[in-house]
Amino acid sequence: VVCLTDYGLEDEFVGVVHRVIEATVPGTRVIDLTHLIPPHDVRAGALSLRRAAPWLAPAVVLAVVDPGVGSTRRALAIEAGPDLTLVGPDNGLLVPAARAVGGITAAVELPPHRRADPELGPTFDGRDVFAPAAARAAAGVPLAGLGNAVDPSSLCEAPVPQPRRLAGAVEAEVLWLDHFGNAQLNVTPSDVDGLGPHVTVLVGGRPYPARRARAFADLAPDELGLITDSYGQLALVYDRAPAAVRLGLVAGSQVVLRR
Amino acid sequence: VVCLTDYGLEDEFVGVVHRVIEATVPGTRVIDLTHLIPPHDVRAGALSLRRAAPWLAPAVVLAVVDPGVGSTRRALAIEAGPDLTLVGPDNGLLVPAARAVGGITAAVELPPHRRADPELGPTFDGRDVFAPAAARAAAGVPLAGLGNAVDPSSLCEAPVPQPRRLAGAVEAEVLWLDHFGNAQLNVTPSDVDGLGPHVTVLVGGRPYPARRARAFADLAPDELGLITDSYGQLALVYDRAPAAVRLGLVAGSQVVLRR
Amino acid sequence: VVCLTDYGLEDEFVGVVHRVIEATVPGTRVIDLTHLIPPHDVRAGALSLRRAAPWLAPAVVLAVVDPGVGSTRRALAIEAGPDLTLVGPDNGLLVPAARAVGGITAAVELPPHRRADPELGPTFDGRDVFAPAAARAAAGVPLAGLGNAVDPSSLCEAPVPQPRRLAGAVEAEVLWLDHFGNAQLNVTPSDVDGLGPHVTVLVGGRPYPARRARAFADLAPDELGLITDSYGQLALVYDRAPAAVRLGLVAGSQVVLRR
Repeated sequence: VVCLTDYGLEDEFVGVVHRVIEATVPGTRVIDLTHLIPPHDVRAGALSLRRAAPWLAPAVVLAVVDPGVGSTRRALAIEAGPDLTLVGPDNGLLVPAARAVGGITAAVELPPHRRADPELGPTFDGRDVFAPAAARAAAGVPLAGLGNAVDPSSLCEAPVPQPRRLAGAVEAEVLWLDHFGNAQLNVTPSDVDGLGPHVTVLVGGRPYPARRARAFADLAPDELGLITDSYGQLALVYDRAPAAVRLGLVAGSQVVLRR
Repeated sequence: VVCLTDYGLEDEFVGVVHRVIEATVPGTRVIDLTHLIPPHDVRAGALSLRRAAPWLAPAVVLAVVDPGVGSTRRALAIEAGPDLTLVGPDNGLLVPAARAVGGITAAVELPPHRRADPELGPTFDGRDVFAPAAARAAAGVPLAGLGNAVDPSSLCEAPVPQPRRLAGAVEAEVLWLDHFGNAQLNVTPSDVDGLGPHVTVLVGGRPYPARRARAFADLAPDELGLITDSYGQLALVYDRAPAAVRLGLVAGSQVVLRR
Repeated sequence: VVCLTDYGLEDEFVGVVHRVIEATVPGTRVIDLTHLIPPHDVRAGALSLRRAAPWLAPAVVLAVVDPGVGSTRRALAIEAGPDLTLVGPDNGLLVPAARAVGGITAAVELPPHRRADPELGPTFDGRDVFAPAAARAAAGVPLAGLGNAVDPSSLCEAPVPQPRRLAGAVEAEVLWLDHFGNAQLNVTPSDVDGLGPHVTVLVGGRPYPARRARAFADLAPDELGLITDSYGQLALVYDRAPAAVRLGLVAGSQVVLRR
């Protein structure tokens, strides 16, 4: 089971989820992707899961960024690609990763938790609903054994913004600022064919000269680079300095790449 | 072995403790509850452990929030409930969790570390005393094999504050602000029987109207809710916003709930 | 496999590295030392690894603090002491730990990653080069099976600063500020033989009286202590308060200990 949540690390949430998985199916191997998705940020969680997905299968993914916990939003388990099962809320969190590995092949709705102790509130489905389901899926329980089938086309989507190609320019969006301050764009190398090795990056109308480069160390100090990152996307980077800070970028910032 | 400490994650402390457990008893499974208890905050650690305890057994808990390390405070292993062993310092950290699962059935004092290298200081009992003892307990060594019996009634207590019920009101205390800014109170639903679905929350004398609700999503934007959380306690919450920040709460803040 | 990186915990980097290790050699046990080495801070990573090294063997260490990723810096696997293999970049990160456990006995250069997907950039050698090599080393593949031998004397060094002993004084440097704000110095108890139980600590020319002590709890409130820490180094500490903040220290700060 591979876990991704917005639970943070300062409380006991993550450890309790691990313990519930172990108690449900002893010996289940658990790997944490991250638990520091910003609170309630479904898009950030969906993108993180999508980036990681090609390296995860075969696996069961337990993903919880779930502001609607306790409401009527559905709890899901879905199968994607040849060998990935994703367990989490129906709010768009799971779908981009599923598409990245070949698309959704089946989906079921998990039944709500029947509380042994009616005094406990319904606000920790990670512990009460998703972790037990993920552990059982990892132990080989088929999707049909986890819940009732739902139509995959009925699932919530979290649309990933597409770049817009203009004459001699591309309108792009920052998908992700990583720990080092590198800014991944929703743009691949083929999207900028024809812009050449030197481009101007417009951020809030302000132009920054940038150069296509292979690695951070190929850049001069203070030179803005446009590299192909380890996921195959273009990223705005400096050598050993955070582009996010220097250019004032946040996730979702609009930038234009111009010849 | 389930671990909880205030060691933080930026140093190698936690990894070294894991490695010592593995070296003491190869193959021991380790789950981290959290290592971000605020430095030296025994009460916060005790409450986190108490919240998690019902989901942990059967397990050995290794808990270290230990400002007295190297002094004469005792090092303990205690048995609680049917199937929980807790290892850590005698400063109140372990007792509330032990009570939550049925009370202390036995306790021993761990002998101090005999240093192979006398050049090393006595400031890392997590590595030198508690981790080896926890690993051995997890491997089935009985309490009597870990140290000499001590009287359970001699253990340090970390008293958990009790609410005060008045006519038409309850004086309460914030036990815990979680990662999302929800404020757990030392109050259960039965404590507020008779206050009705709408209550006034007094914080520092200032009144905030609040409504009993089931889930975050049941609240209107900016509406303060009083929900039963996943531990069965009442919590002050907003939908997707931190009550801690909006109400200016810290752990230990006094609040009054009034009809 | 024991891991140390500057990857942070907010992205999926660490989880993907764990998954790649598991996929390369199923069942490999992974322990995280820390992933919060400050970005690109090779010295901090090297010191953390050196502190932990005596507790790690037998183990394979996967260490990545690697601003030169994708450039011509070499990727290494080295053998040290009786039973430690270290995998990481040739930038000084690995050598101090290797020396701490008995010195380097052999070293090989890992071949660069042959990308199945040429669209992916070369900026994640932790995932693409180091994790697979570490997993194979943990599974028993000998160094010669991982790459071509290189001369150990050709490896990058990360020199650890030495203290300077003067008449009645020692010029020292802060090696490390831990999570609690304790300041480890590059000084051992034998370096300060003769200074006596009371010393003056000069920080930026300003004198602070300090006392040699055994444990934090031996200090009065606001009394500065000089203790032997759990690694055998001297550290400037307060009882339950951060010396780093009170004395305005950072890693690398110069201090003088005077009789």
